[in-house]
Amino acid sequence: MEPILIAGQWQRSHDEAGGFRAVDPTTGEAIGPQFPRSGPRDVEAALRAAGAIADELAATKPARIADFLERYAAGIESAADELAATAHAETALPLAPRLSAVELPRTTHQLRQAAAAVRAYAWTHPVIDTQAGLRAHYAPLHKPVLVFGPNNFPFAFNAVAGSDFASAIAARNPVIAKAHPSHPATSRVLARIAHEAVHASGLPEATVQLLYDLDPALGLSLAGDRRLGAIGFTGSRGAGLALKAAADRAGIPIYAEMSSVNPVFLLPGALRERGDALAQDFFASCTMGSGQFCTNPGVVMLPEGADGDAFAAAVAARFAATAPAVLFSHGVQQHLAQAVARLREAGAQVVAGAAQSQGPGARYAPTLLSVSAQAFLAAPEALQQEAFGPVSLLVRYRDAEQAAALARAFDGNLTGTLHSAADGTDDAAYQRIAPALRARVGRLIDDKWPTGVAVSAAMQHGGPYPSTSHAGFTSVGMPAAIRRYAALHSYDQVRDDRLPPELRDANPGGVQRCIDGSWTTADIGRKA
Amino acid sequence: MEPILIAGQWQRSHDEAGGFRAVDPTTGEAIGPQFPRSGPRDVEAALRAAGAIADELAATKPARIADFLERYAAGIESAADELAATAHAETALPLAPRLSAVELPRTTHQLRQAAAAVRAYAWTHPVIDTQAGLRAHYAPLHKPVLVFGPNNFPFAFNAVAGSDFASAIAARNPVIAKAHPSHPATSRVLARIAHEAVHASGLPEATVQLLYDLDPALGLSLAGDRRLGAIGFTGSRGAGLALKAAADRAGIPIYAEMSSVNPVFLLPGALRERGDALAQDFFASCTMGSGQFCTNPGVVMLPEGADGDAFAAAVAARFAATAPAVLFSHGVQQHLAQAVARLREAGAQVVAGAAQSQGPGARYAPTLLSVSAQAFLAAPEALQQEAFGPVSLLVRYRDAEQAAALARAFDGNLTGTLHSAADGTDDAAYQRIAPALRARVGRLIDDKWPTGVAVSAAMQHGGPYPSTSHAGFTSVGMPAAIRRYAALHSYDQVRDDRLPPELRDANPGGVQRCIDGSWTTADIGRKA
Repeated sequence: MEPILIAGQWQRSHDEAGGFRAVDPTTGEAIGPQFPRSGPRDVEAALRAAGAIADELAATKPARIADFLERYAAGIESAADELAATAHAETALPLAPRLSAVELPRTTHQLRQAAAAVRAYAWTHPVIDTQAGLRAHYAPLHKPVLVFGPNNFPFAFNAVAGSDFASAIAARNPVIAKAHPSHPATSRVLARIAHEAVHASGLPEATVQLLYDLDPALGLSLAGDRRLGAIGFTGSRGAGLALKAAADRAGIPIYAEMSSVNPVFLLPGALRERGDALAQDFFASCTMGSGQFCTNPGVVMLPEGADGDAFAAAVAARFAATAPAVLFSHGVQQHLAQAVARLREAGAQVVAGAAQSQGPGARYAPTLLSVSAQAFLAAPEALQQEAFGPVSLLVRYRDAEQAAALARAFDGNLTGTLHSAADGTDDAAYQRIAPALRARVGRLIDDKWPTGVAVSAAMQHGGPYPSTSHAGFTSVGMPAAIRRYAALHSYDQVRDDRLPPELRDANPGGVQRCIDGSWTTADIGRKA
Repeated sequence: MEPILIAGQWQRSHDEAGGFRAVDPTTGEAIGPQFPRSGPRDVEAALRAAGAIADELAATKPARIADFLERYAAGIESAADELAATAHAETALPLAPRLSAVELPRTTHQLRQAAAAVRAYAWTHPVIDTQAGLRAHYAPLHKPVLVFGPNNFPFAFNAVAGSDFASAIAARNPVIAKAHPSHPATSRVLARIAHEAVHASGLPEATVQLLYDLDPALGLSLAGDRRLGAIGFTGSRGAGLALKAAADRAGIPIYAEMSSVNPVFLLPGALRERGDALAQDFFASCTMGSGQFCTNPGVVMLPEGADGDAFAAAVAARFAATAPAVLFSHGVQQHLAQAVARLREAGAQVVAGAAQSQGPGARYAPTLLSVSAQAFLAAPEALQQEAFGPVSLLVRYRDAEQAAALARAFDGNLTGTLHSAADGTDDAAYQRIAPALRARVGRLIDDKWPTGVAVSAAMQHGGPYPSTSHAGFTSVGMPAAIRRYAALHSYDQVRDDRLPPELRDANPGGVQRCIDGSWTTADIGRKA
């Protein structure tokens, strides 16, 4: 049985609550060693260890935190081959380019972006009112952050390496990582590298802890434990809402990214200008990573008429010609089959795919469905359920007015996309549809497909409920993602030498601060 | 029966669910006209009217919003005498300076600060990544905000005039104001002025709506209505937690400010230097406004020994010599008596006050209690219950180590205060206690008393749960308070002329924007 990481020690699980092995999705066969499913004693040990060092970590110099994040990124790069091979075996995601050339560099970039935000004090957002004698910034929670990782990004959203992890540590909070049980060995390697970096950077040993799996009921009781400062979650809506209910009752902020169908509007002029390219790119966006993206284009609004028909036919041919895609697990396959069945029950017609699994392991045929706008508007809730996998629903609309009505029928989503003509012929339709779509999504996209989430300060990887638990926060992009794991602290007439460094009169590091309403790197002059 | 304000019309309540009158707290007699208690039809009408104009309001030019906020402030000033007299009659708060010279100017200042933040786009916090083609800012919710006003600030936190109101409107969201039933006539006058300003500014008529009272069960069902974008609440912990549970279940962000005992640490050197002044100021802070402040100093840590004894005696004499204070209502009086009884049951000794009400109306004697640090540490939960009114508990501590243990025993609070010697003799003790206190409060204060909340960009009027529902937000201070009622919106490759003004390449208004990591008012150059 593999050890868990608690209190800076790789140790045997306190509980013998059972174990599990990873599964090769391509074969359905168990692979690798046994990993423990943790019980209440492991959870209690992790909470105590993290709680015991939370104040020490909060008082740690930012440079040391940044050093850790950078060492960790370098360590991941040194183990890139091992990591990519391990993740490939556990997830069946392509070794290259996806794992080795896209997701791994994204993960190290994210850790380094977090380090840069720490060194620049960017996430602390210092605001000073010299007249009132008040100074404010964002500060650590002084409590551990619990991070639940999803199945679909073994590196970039891993509970012990991804954006929630980097954000929580950047804000100087200990992390209790609950890895996703579909890739335990990958999480084990990452935690090993993180642990070495913790040690080398001189951070408290319990800064990073790892559990591989929990009984769902134990997960819920942990999510409601007031010793936690906050929770990060990426996963299904069902699990997210259950954890949110537990956390809410205890007054613990939870940032849950839960589900999204990412509506896409194809406008007539765009189809006319570049219908073939759009069909090709849509197919690629919908089937990349077997469609297991939170930004997968799940519902595509397509005009009626010849250009729309040609697009649908071109896409259908591509879907039909493609072998069933390997999914992360039989569970994902089962959920997907159920979701497609529900969409069909609600009136969607199968255009291509929806075939039974072929071959060993967990597979599902890339599937294209279609429905009229009228039918969609008659059952919008049923027809915008997420089908996590290589599945998309075409909604055929009559005109801009009906497209705008469709936009208004969507609930909160991560992204919304409009493809419009370069020559301006779609501008009136765009102006009709975009405002309604804008209000319902976190990221509004022109003329490209939604998969692909840049790690950028201007990213919003979030959106209105129920796509996430709060429309004001992003789970990707520094420094904003860090601020989720922070408390707003104000200092009222506090003497200069007692202030945190970035709030003092002197600003030798050139931190950007908002002083009396203006952003500046200047010192504050001594008062007369 | 007075009319309610729905859909831009002063109209008869749709429901005849009963009415109520204000009560003069000094006499206990009903005063003024009958006001309706609204039922489900009023609530539905308000939701529909606000929902119908939410998109229009979101698309309104910021200058028009600022114009409204400024007109409203001017209108309040024009009606200052009527407002102060009305609020005085309904709350028994002193006409001057409190109502006319402090709270009313604070309220108009707050509205104008919100207007300034709107004109400068300060709350939208534009962030631009030119390389990634991403631009982000905070934007309206496109749904109405429900605001519950408290009893204790008839102007500055009034549901139809206070910080939540100003913040929600500044972010271009309609407000459904649920006034506090203890000052309906004051709320009526404010809403009349707000309505006139809405009209004069050309905002949609349903931008501001007013209900005077709701059955609690109806309030809970309203708080869980997904047509709302967010909720602001200031009031008791019981009501706040019930509303929070309802809102959480529906995924509606709620910003609830609920309770605080505002721990104050008097360090030995400070007592030695200025014990008399501290005693005088403490008494004033604890009894001002009959102690009905959320930042009332409810628990004061005082050293054992002669200086501490002298301070306690001086304060006790002041408390004992003071007539019972008029409270807002019999309900407040009853809750206060119960809270004092619970503190006594938990081991606190009465030093002064705790007497029965004298005279007509709702009154309570300024009350000082005392307990040992050891006893406090044995029952910290029971002894840090809020007693809303002119009541404070002295906790006598032995040394800095014990004081630090006390600091660690506090739950989340709005403020925490340390009074230390100017000559540096308390510095070691300060360094021991302050970090633990810092982690548990929103605003850390040196050498003054916590009552008095400046409307400042660097204010944090908020704190860790359960003082509020989220430690990352403030309910006072622009622009931060506005951001509570906003969604984070990102634009990905969106064409320049389709962007909101403050995210376009050209920046003719000189908006402060964070471009590629640096705050600047510059334009963005055209790409080659």
